[in-house]
Amino acid sequence: MERMALDDRRRRADRARQVADLLRRQIIHGGFPGGQLPLEAALAREFDTSRNTVRQALDLLREEGLVERCPGVGTTVAAEKYPHGLHRLLGLAETLHEHGRVVNQVRTMTLIEPPAPVSHRLGLAPGEQVVYLERLRSLNGLPLSLDLTYLVRDVGEPLFDEDLAGNDIFVLLETIAGQPLGTAELTLEAVNADPHTAAALGTPRGAALLMVERLTHLADGRPVDLEFIRFRGDRLTMRGHLRRTEKEEQAWP
Amino acid sequence: MERMALDDRRRRADRARQVADLLRRQIIHGGFPGGQLPLEAALAREFDTSRNTVRQALDLLREEGLVERCPGVGTTVAAEKYPHGLHRLLGLAETLHEHGRVVNQVRTMTLIEPPAPVSHRLGLAPGEQVVYLERLRSLNGLPLSLDLTYLVRDVGEPLFDEDLAGNDIFVLLETIAGQPLGTAELTLEAVNADPHTAAALGTPRGAALLMVERLTHLADGRPVDLEFIRFRGDRLTMRGHLRRTEKEEQAWP
Repeated sequence: MERMALDDRRRRADRARQVADLLRRQIIHGGFPGGQLPLEAALAREFDTSRNTVRQALDLLREEGLVERCPGVGTTVAAEKYPHGLHRLLGLAETLHEHGRVVNQVRTMTLIEPPAPVSHRLGLAPGEQVVYLERLRSLNGLPLSLDLTYLVRDVGEPLFDEDLAGNDIFVLLETIAGQPLGTAELTLEAVNADPHTAAALGTPRGAALLMVERLTHLADGRPVDLEFIRFRGDRLTMRGHLRRTEKEEQAWP
Repeated sequence: MERMALDDRRRRADRARQVADLLRRQIIHGGFPGGQLPLEAALAREFDTSRNTVRQALDLLREEGLVERCPGVGTTVAAEKYPHGLHRLLGLAETLHEHGRVVNQVRTMTLIEPPAPVSHRLGLAPGEQVVYLERLRSLNGLPLSLDLTYLVRDVGEPLFDEDLAGNDIFVLLETIAGQPLGTAELTLEAVNADPHTAAALGTPRGAALLMVERLTHLADGRPVDLEFIRFRGDRLTMRGHLRRTEKEEQAWP
């Protein structure tokens, strides 16, 4: 008997997760005009499930910060979640230019003698200095990411005279180096926000962050820019395409 | 005076984050032979910082589940974090074949009449049934991801007779369809684990998950496989390359 009840609870939780996943996609892709979700009864009909399951699904989305729920008003989209392109190497202001204005607050900018792992990644001799830069980046006034950046000195030092509040580093680096950027290697992770990062990003402690480590090279192949970026998980998605076969490979034998 | 103390605390927290980010990368890339990190004093020298800052950095990594700290033993890598390729469309067992054996526990497999958003994404008429599949996927016996999958009926139904525990869906679909997969659109997010997902994945409530929504097409362009995947953030990274210019575009004018 108790076993049945457990199974029932699991089934409803599984079902709520399914509904939440589908609603999440519609929310992220602007599928609800005016940011207003249908009433619970209508969603229950659409998903052919109970109102309890719908309520549980909406609770999951509220806990993620995607929706707000008010008696009498119903369920509304809480905040836009912005798409960061994964198809091409772009700075934040470049990739989000349709969504508003990116402003960067410079928290730290200084010349440092970097730890060995940074020197190694940037291909520098021990003792060679780098520019260390820490920025809090906001879109339309809301904090989006905390970026820690290590730049090779010859392209990094001219940035002391540039407008870093209103420009992506990428665009400035290309002007300084007199050549475009080439490729970047990146690693993506999901991590919980530590208390200090949470405070800087205005998010609860432990909130899920999308963490990106990215080493960017100039077109000539030289690594110049090593970044550690923490995006607020409730404000940003990464979007891209993958192909089954590499372009060089033959398709299906 | 109090203001100074606050600044000092912030500076140490910022410094600890820098150290933690660099150590995280070394851990993920197997930079510590035998999984043993150097002593605090040695790390303090390497990063030219105080032992207190090093201790705070190691605490951040412990909270992420990346390292364990024991008196007398020091700091050891807690669990391997596996790399999922972002350069090509691959199933989990395909992308992790060097790291061990992927086993899939089928929690649910059934024919359903899907909700409208699923029909729409898969290009189906209202009322057309799909195969719904829920799998808990483990690598070397440790839970890695919870996958919710909707499959177009003609390629999904033959899966009832296949070994889903030991095979990626991708490979089976290609055999069934008699053609390779083509491309997939994917969206990546960081979300906190809800209690039921946390229980299934054996992770604490609220743990950061890497969430992937992926719509996969056959080579002929037909969408056949819609998946919602929750990866444990402490077990998996996504890795790829980005190019500054699209291949079609001219480089720097």
